[in-house]
Amino acid sequence: MSEAEAIQFRNDMTVELVKATASDSDVIWAARVSTKGEASLDDVDADPEKARGLINYLMRDRHGTPFEHTSLTYFISAPIFVFREFMRHRIASYNEESGRYRELRPVFYVPGPDRNLIQQGKPGAYEFVPGTPEQHRIVVEQTEASCRQAYGAYQDMLAAGVAREVARIVLPVTTYSSMYVTMNARALMNFLSLRTKHPDSHFPSFPQREIEMVADLMEAEWAALMPITHQAFAANGRVAP
Amino acid sequence: MSEAEAIQFRNDMTVELVKATASDSDVIWAARVSTKGEASLDDVDADPEKARGLINYLMRDRHGTPFEHTSLTYFISAPIFVFREFMRHRIASYNEESGRYRELRPVFYVPGPDRNLIQQGKPGAYEFVPGTPEQHRIVVEQTEASCRQAYGAYQDMLAAGVAREVARIVLPVTTYSSMYVTMNARALMNFLSLRTKHPDSHFPSFPQREIEMVADLMEAEWAALMPITHQAFAANGRVAP
Amino acid sequence: MSEAEAIQFRNDMTVELVKATASDSDVIWAARVSTKGEASLDDVDADPEKARGLINYLMRDRHGTPFEHTSLTYFISAPIFVFREFMRHRIASYNEESGRYRELRPVFYVPGPDRNLIQQGKPGAYEFVPGTPEQHRIVVEQTEASCRQAYGAYQDMLAAGVAREVARIVLPVTTYSSMYVTMNARALMNFLSLRTKHPDSHFPSFPQREIEMVADLMEAEWAALMPITHQAFAANGRVAP
Amino acid sequence: MSEAEAIQFRNDMTVELVKATASDSDVIWAARVSTKGEASLDDVDADPEKARGLINYLMRDRHGTPFEHTSLTYFISAPIFVFREFMRHRIASYNEESGRYRELRPVFYVPGPDRNLIQQGKPGAYEFVPGTPEQHRIVVEQTEASCRQAYGAYQDMLAAGVAREVARIVLPVTTYSSMYVTMNARALMNFLSLRTKHPDSHFPSFPQREIEMVADLMEAEWAALMPITHQAFAANGRVAP
Repeated sequence: MSEAEAIQFRNDMTVELVKATASDSDVIWAARVSTKGEASLDDVDADPEKARGLINYLMRDRHGTPFEHTSLTYFISAPIFVFREFMRHRIASYNEESGRYRELRPVFYVPGPDRNLIQQGKPGAYEFVPGTPEQHRIVVEQTEASCRQAYGAYQDMLAAGVAREVARIVLPVTTYSSMYVTMNARALMNFLSLRTKHPDSHFPSFPQREIEMVADLMEAEWAALMPITHQAFAANGRVAP
Repeated sequence: MSEAEAIQFRNDMTVELVKATASDSDVIWAARVSTKGEASLDDVDADPEKARGLINYLMRDRHGTPFEHTSLTYFISAPIFVFREFMRHRIASYNEESGRYRELRPVFYVPGPDRNLIQQGKPGAYEFVPGTPEQHRIVVEQTEASCRQAYGAYQDMLAAGVAREVARIVLPVTTYSSMYVTMNARALMNFLSLRTKHPDSHFPSFPQREIEMVADLMEAEWAALMPITHQAFAANGRVAP
Repeated sequence: MSEAEAIQFRNDMTVELVKATASDSDVIWAARVSTKGEASLDDVDADPEKARGLINYLMRDRHGTPFEHTSLTYFISAPIFVFREFMRHRIASYNEESGRYRELRPVFYVPGPDRNLIQQGKPGAYEFVPGTPEQHRIVVEQTEASCRQAYGAYQDMLAAGVAREVARIVLPVTTYSSMYVTMNARALMNFLSLRTKHPDSHFPSFPQREIEMVADLMEAEWAALMPITHQAFAANGRVAP
Repeated sequence: MSEAEAIQFRNDMTVELVKATASDSDVIWAARVSTKGEASLDDVDADPEKARGLINYLMRDRHGTPFEHTSLTYFISAPIFVFREFMRHRIASYNEESGRYRELRPVFYVPGPDRNLIQQGKPGAYEFVPGTPEQHRIVVEQTEASCRQAYGAYQDMLAAGVAREVARIVLPVTTYSSMYVTMNARALMNFLSLRTKHPDSHFPSFPQREIEMVADLMEAEWAALMPITHQAFAANGRVAP
C-alpha cells in the first residue's frame, strides 16, 4: 500500500536501452541479399568505406527495408501525455503499466525552469519562448496543487473500496507511467524525424518538448549502436528511408 | 474563450458512423477471386444461402483477408482513458482533437449509477459488482471535485498566458475527447473480440466497462451494414478471422 | 476445363476502380478535429481556397493521418512478377486468384515494342533505353516459346491427375494473375512515390516499367477522386506525407 | 557469368536462424510491467513454475503484446511460389534477392518422392494423398523440362544484351530464391498457426506442403529459444495470442 508514500514531482524523463540487436552490419547483409553476384558491389563486404557508401545510398534513395532487421527495446518513464503521443506510432510494440492491475504511484511531471512556456506564431508554425518567473511559478503551483488534490481523491476512493480502474480516472495526464517499447531502426528513424527538432532536418517538425526529451535520449542510445546509419540519417536531412 | 462555459459531467459515450463502404457482398467478391472457375463454388454468386455458407466458412477457418476490403469511419466522444486503450489497436487510423492546437472543453466522465464499482477475484479473472450508494456517492463527489479543481488550474494557467500544451497537463484522464477512427471489418472484429464481453465468446475478455460501452455502439452500427458477417462472427465464438 | 483455351499474349495491364470512399473533404474534416475552436482555422470549412491551403500544409509538413480515412479498392490484372513487387507494400489488403483453388488461364505478358529493353549505368542508377528490333524479336520469341512449353507441361500434369498446386510450379512469373487491393490514400501515395517515376519527384525512384504501368493507371483514378490532394502531392515532390 | 553453371534440381528447403533476441524471460518482464506491485503476482519473478503459469495464462487469454518484444531473423532458401505465400504475412520484414540487380542461378524445386501429389475432397477441406510412381515420373520430367527450357531462354536473352529484369520473366515460380525475414514471436506464432498442420490445432489449416516445410524448420529453431512459450502455444491449440 502506498498510503505513506510521499508525492514526488519530477521534470525529467528516463530512457533505458534494455536490449538490442542492431548494428550497421545488419543493414549491409540485408541489402546485399538483393545484389550478391553483382560484381561492382561485391567488394562492399570487405571495405568499410564502401559499406558507408552503401548505407548512405540506401538512406538517400529510400530503400527502407534493410534497416528493419534490427530491434531495440527501451524502458521509458514519462508522463501519460507523452505516451499518448508516442503510441500513435503504430509500427512498434508496447507494454505499459496498467492502472487496472496495479495501484499507480504519486509521481508527477512539473515543467522545469528551462521549459519554454509561451507559444507564439500561428498554427502549424508555433514557436516557444521562455515564460517569466511569475508564469513559471503559476505553472508549478497550479500543477502541484492539482496533482495533490487528484491523488488524494484517488486514495480516498481506493480506501472506500472502489476498484482501481474507476478510481484512477481522476489522475491527471501529467502522472508518470512506464512502458517497454520495441522498434526496429526504420520505425525509430520515422519516430525521430517527427519527434525531434533539428536545424538540419529536411522536413520541419514541431514536437512537444517533453516527447522530444524522450526521443533525444532514445536517439543517443541508437546512435551508439549504429553509428554509420545514424550519420547517414543526419546527413540526409533526418528523413526516414 | 470558454471562461463562461459551465462544467459538464456526463456518463455516456457517443458513437456516430460517419461513412462506410462495407457490405456482405464485399466479402463474397473478394473471396471469389481466389476460386472463380472452381465449378462447385460458382453458384455462390447467385444463391444467397450459399453466400451465407461461404462467409461462415471463411470466418470459421480464419480466412481473414476477404473481410478487409471494407472501411468504416466513426466519430467517437469518450474520456481520454478510453482512447488510451483504444489506440493500442494498431490496424486503424486515428485523428483526435489536440490539446496543443485547441482549448479543451470542461466535459468530464463520471460513472453513472449502474456502473459496477467493486472489483472481486484474482488478477486475470476479475469480476465487477455494484457498489453501495455510499461508494457511488464518494466516486461522484471525488471525481467532480477533482475535475473542477483541475479545470480551474487549467484556466488559471491559460489566463496567465501559458501555452495550451503546458496548461493541459493537469487535466484528468476522465476528460472527454473526440476522434475519428477508421477500421476495416477484420480489424473491427478483432477490436470487438477484445473489448466486448459476451457469453458466447470462445475466448474470455475482460474489457473495462467504459470502452465496452463504445464497442457495443460500434458493433450495432456495423451489424446493420454487414448482417451475415455479423451473424457468422457471433456464431463462431466472436473470434476475429 | 480449359483444354481448348488458346494461349494469349498481352502487353498491357488493367486497373479497375471497384469502389472507393475518398474525397478531399475527408481530409479536411479529419484534420479539423484536431483544431476546431482555433479561430484562425475555423473559416477553412467554408472557404475552398483555405481548404486547398490546409491540404497543402498537411502534405508539406507530413501530417499523414488525415489522409488515412479513405479507402480505394482496385481490381488489377498483371503478371505475377508485378504482384511480387506490389505485395511488398504492407499497408494494404490483398486477395489474389489462387493457383491452388482454380486452374490458371494461359495468358502471358510479353513486352511490347515500346518497352525499353537495355539497361545502362551502375546499380542504383540504372537507365533503360530501347533495344534493337532484333533484341525485341528475341524477347518475344523466347518468352512465347517458354510460356507455350510451360503451359503444355502444366496441362500434361493436370491431365495426369496431379494437383493444381503442384502442376502450377512450372508456370513463369510472366503469367497473368488478378487481385483486389484496398488501400487508403496515404498508403497509395507511398506506393506511387516508389512505383512511378516523375521529373518533379523529390526523391528518385527506379520502378520496373511494368509496375509503373499499373501505378500510373491507379494514380489517374485516384486523382479524379481527390484532385486537391493529388495536386498537393505533385506540388510537394511526390513525397507521401 | 553463369554460362558454365549446371542446372540443379532440389526438393528441400533451407532455414538458418541468423540472429535472435528472443527468450521466455522477455515475455515475463514485458507482462510484469503491467502488474508490478500487485502482490499476488510479485513472486512470479522468482519462481520458474509461476513463470510457466503466467506465460500459459497470457497465451490462453490472448494477451499478445508481451510476446512482441522479441526478434528472430532467418535466412531462407525456397522456391518463389513459397515466398509468394510467405510475403502475404505483413507483420514481418523482408529482403529478398532481386532478379533486377543480379543474375538468377539455375536452381529449381522439383517435388520429392514423398510429396503427396493427388488432391481429394472439396474446396476448403482438401486432402492430399500419394501419387503413383507414374504420376511422380510425369511431374519430375515435366518440371525439369520446363525449367531447362526457361533457363535456356533466360540465358539467350541475357546473351543478346537484354536487361535482367526483362529476361527473368520467363523463369518459373519453382525457381529458388533466398531472403532474410525478421519477425517477432507473436507474428511468428500467427504464421505457424496458418502454415503448419497439427492434430492438436484448435483451428484447421491447409498449408501447401512446401511452405509447411519452411515453417516446420522455423518452428524448431524458435522452440529451442523459447521453450516455455512454445509449449504454451502447443498446449493452447496453436492459436496465436
